[in-house]
Amino acid sequence: MAAPSVAVDNLNPKVVLKCEYAVRGEIVIHAQRLQQQLQTQPGSLPFDEILYCNIGNPQSLGQQPVTFFREVLALCDHPCLLEKEETKSLFSADAISRATTILASIPGRATGAYSHSQGIKGLRDAIAAGIASRDGYPANADDIFLTDGASPGVHMMMQLLIRNEKDGILCPIPQYPLYSASIALHGGALVPYYLNESTGWGLEISDLKKQLEDARSKGIDVRALVVINPGNPTGQVLAEENQRDIVKFCKNEGLVLLADEVYQENIYVDNKKFNSFKKIARSMGYKEDDLPLVSFQSVSKGYYGECGKRGGYMEITGFSAPVREQIYKVASVNLCSNITGQILASLVMNPPKAGDASYASYKAEKDGILQSLARRAKALENAFNNLEGIKCNKTEGAMYLFPQLSLPQKAIEAAKAVNKAPDAFYALRLLEATGIVVVPGSGFGQVPGTWHIRCTILPQEEKIPAIISRFKAFHEGFMAAYRD
Amino acid sequence: MAAPSVAVDNLNPKVVLKCEYAVRGEIVIHAQRLQQQLQTQPGSLPFDEILYCNIGNPQSLGQQPVTFFREVLALCDHPCLLEKEETKSLFSADAISRATTILASIPGRATGAYSHSQGIKGLRDAIAAGIASRDGYPANADDIFLTDGASPGVHMMMQLLIRNEKDGILCPIPQYPLYSASIALHGGALVPYYLNESTGWGLEISDLKKQLEDARSKGIDVRALVVINPGNPTGQVLAEENQRDIVKFCKNEGLVLLADEVYQENIYVDNKKFNSFKKIARSMGYKEDDLPLVSFQSVSKGYYGECGKRGGYMEITGFSAPVREQIYKVASVNLCSNITGQILASLVMNPPKAGDASYASYKAEKDGILQSLARRAKALENAFNNLEGIKCNKTEGAMYLFPQLSLPQKAIEAAKAVNKAPDAFYALRLLEATGIVVVPGSGFGQVPGTWHIRCTILPQEEKIPAIISRFKAFHEGFMAAYRD
Repeated sequence: MAAPSVAVDNLNPKVVLKCEYAVRGEIVIHAQRLQQQLQTQPGSLPFDEILYCNIGNPQSLGQQPVTFFREVLALCDHPCLLEKEETKSLFSADAISRATTILASIPGRATGAYSHSQGIKGLRDAIAAGIASRDGYPANADDIFLTDGASPGVHMMMQLLIRNEKDGILCPIPQYPLYSASIALHGGALVPYYLNESTGWGLEISDLKKQLEDARSKGIDVRALVVINPGNPTGQVLAEENQRDIVKFCKNEGLVLLADEVYQENIYVDNKKFNSFKKIARSMGYKEDDLPLVSFQSVSKGYYGECGKRGGYMEITGFSAPVREQIYKVASVNLCSNITGQILASLVMNPPKAGDASYASYKAEKDGILQSLARRAKALENAFNNLEGIKCNKTEGAMYLFPQLSLPQKAIEAAKAVNKAPDAFYALRLLEATGIVVVPGSGFGQVPGTWHIRCTILPQEEKIPAIISRFKAFHEGFMAAYRD
Repeated sequence: MAAPSVAVDNLNPKVVLKCEYAVRGEIVIHAQRLQQQLQTQPGSLPFDEILYCNIGNPQSLGQQPVTFFREVLALCDHPCLLEKEETKSLFSADAISRATTILASIPGRATGAYSHSQGIKGLRDAIAAGIASRDGYPANADDIFLTDGASPGVHMMMQLLIRNEKDGILCPIPQYPLYSASIALHGGALVPYYLNESTGWGLEISDLKKQLEDARSKGIDVRALVVINPGNPTGQVLAEENQRDIVKFCKNEGLVLLADEVYQENIYVDNKKFNSFKKIARSMGYKEDDLPLVSFQSVSKGYYGECGKRGGYMEITGFSAPVREQIYKVASVNLCSNITGQILASLVMNPPKAGDASYASYKAEKDGILQSLARRAKALENAFNNLEGIKCNKTEGAMYLFPQLSLPQKAIEAAKAVNKAPDAFYALRLLEATGIVVVPGSGFGQVPGTWHIRCTILPQEEKIPAIISRFKAFHEGFMAAYRD
């Protein structure tokens, strides 16, 4: 028989060798195997459920969707309902009127038709209005590109900006692995800048500048700067002054600012608030033409957590008309993003307002979720900080804790012996002992020689005490076993 | 001021120069402009509406969604409805039970959670069962990768198979421009094989072989063969014997068979039926290991036409475990496809059956749509064939006519004078005179020196006579004006 026509060694090496996606990586696949084992052989493991703390997927852990959003989606999926008398008793009045408005903005009320490649114009108008009201600066529907979640928007920009391995993208370390994966898939160079763990994952312009110059001296044409704010996996919220410095830096260095702002609603501390980079730039007097800026937003995060709906948008400002045409062309190749996600993106940017029929229940649902997330973040942070060899910065925003592990030398050697990074070794042992799934810091990048894990704050609040005590027991046992 | 940091000449040239997407190209953008003009200045154009015959987007032209599918989607979007008494009078009993089954198959009934990277297991089981019942051969949920429409699946395979410009993909000409765009974006070589217009767009193995050898002699490593069946833009349905020869060819030449089977439900002639390539391969005794085969399916086509929902799947067989792991990794980078689209994909592969409460109305909706499409195809085909200089093959399947235009030399020169391909010139004049939007054959590829247009069969049936008479009047005027 001939050699197989397709084998790993004749696939695209960018995919095979370079693309890693830790939040769906080896440890998660192992967890899924253990979950199957729990079903087929109950009692065969030292725990009775897998606790997925590996990914920002709130509804998979019991978070309920916001009722108003789902009412509108159901009515838009099956518009015949709007003609039925019973509907008035089943749906809130403002959901009915919102669905009616949305359907009226869709040509032929056809939620099953491909839309404009950027998304339905009426929904982009609504999103632009939501952005304007958030920022206090105008926004334009023509600048909005609706996407299936934030990821396809990021891929689209990387695909446009990266020509070859000499094109670089400045990325925070630690970073969400979408960025490293996307840069690798498109054949570019990731230019790392390190967040400063000792100042609460501070973003320091001096380091940014150093890394930029270092990359340039190696012949890298640095095209863009990625900033994730609030931070993933690091949970910090940038201070306004820091954001101004970042904007100035991009302007002076001729970089595109790629602002991952998907956690804009997830802020848990009183002394910080979310400011979009566009608002910051405009407040500094920078006009459209001064700075090419892309803001990514998603329906997957926030208090809504509608990951499975794959909705999101990018707002693109400061690009010339010919460049925008190319962005439009890339968007067109996939025709359009899914309409359910498009509708949801318009809703999260325009939730019920005071006076609307749903407002009170909507507000209660939203506040309930965000306040509980804040409590969970605090409880887990305290728990981590009470353990030997673990140091954890505060989660100001987003959905993650990223504690540093000071592991005994013996543990590091034991990891090496099985050809694993020490934090991956730790995470695997944690999973096998407790069913808790976290992602090793090596999946996000970290200062060499330091070790971390990323743990979401998403398990149901009533499960947090049990998670903490299981974690504590495991950690103490681990440290005792490998004490130097 | 410094040079702009982002300009067309420093973007990825694969995107800027090579990626073309005719079905959303120049002529469609011009049509959108005219549509705005009709709104702002009614009466300013020689027609009062734009008739979009450029893209297979049935619901944008008034086709209604299948009620059962939408009932299930609405219930899955807002599962609280299942607990309400009124729901029983608003929804059909089988929609309620189907939604209940689907929700039970989703961990935590969470339609707002990211799923497994391949899609929800229960839905993949349902799709595998649908494939098995269609083909009479087993199908496996592990082989199904749910995708946001067929396009992302095609991109995923191209991304994996193409390493550099020496990797080739055999593609039909004419072809749906997704393939040329995707091969260009991933930096590979499109190896064309021509469909034979004079035998009803026949696919001839001898030509395939010739093109393959020709490419190999130039140092191209040909990795895969794309077959679109039923054909887009050409509308032919492959004969079973022809399919067997194609399968043998791929097996002998070590090619991956990429089977675009998204029009599997769109067949309008009694003497042809759809056979999946997997069924053909299995019926020839070929086992899983004999042939790497990918079948693409979508919720956008068929009688369902749910383009805006962006649902679809690829069924992958005949790849080794290590290669499948890489496919899984690529799927993971975008986390998962949208759950609404996933649910819909499971529904179109498992529609109501005889005995189900919705069956009669479902069957009436389905038959009504497909029979009307068949009548529209026939009426347009006859109309084209009655015009001077137009010759149109029968639309056996899919959603398009692809008539050949024999244009007068003067028209060809007039086109050259304005720097346009003659068929693009014709399509533009047609649009400006009638509001009818078709796509020039040059957007799909054609034998050099021949000219075509692609016209969908999708405008509402009652509009077909008016379209035909407008088209006829335009064409006669055009031919008269440019007669040699």
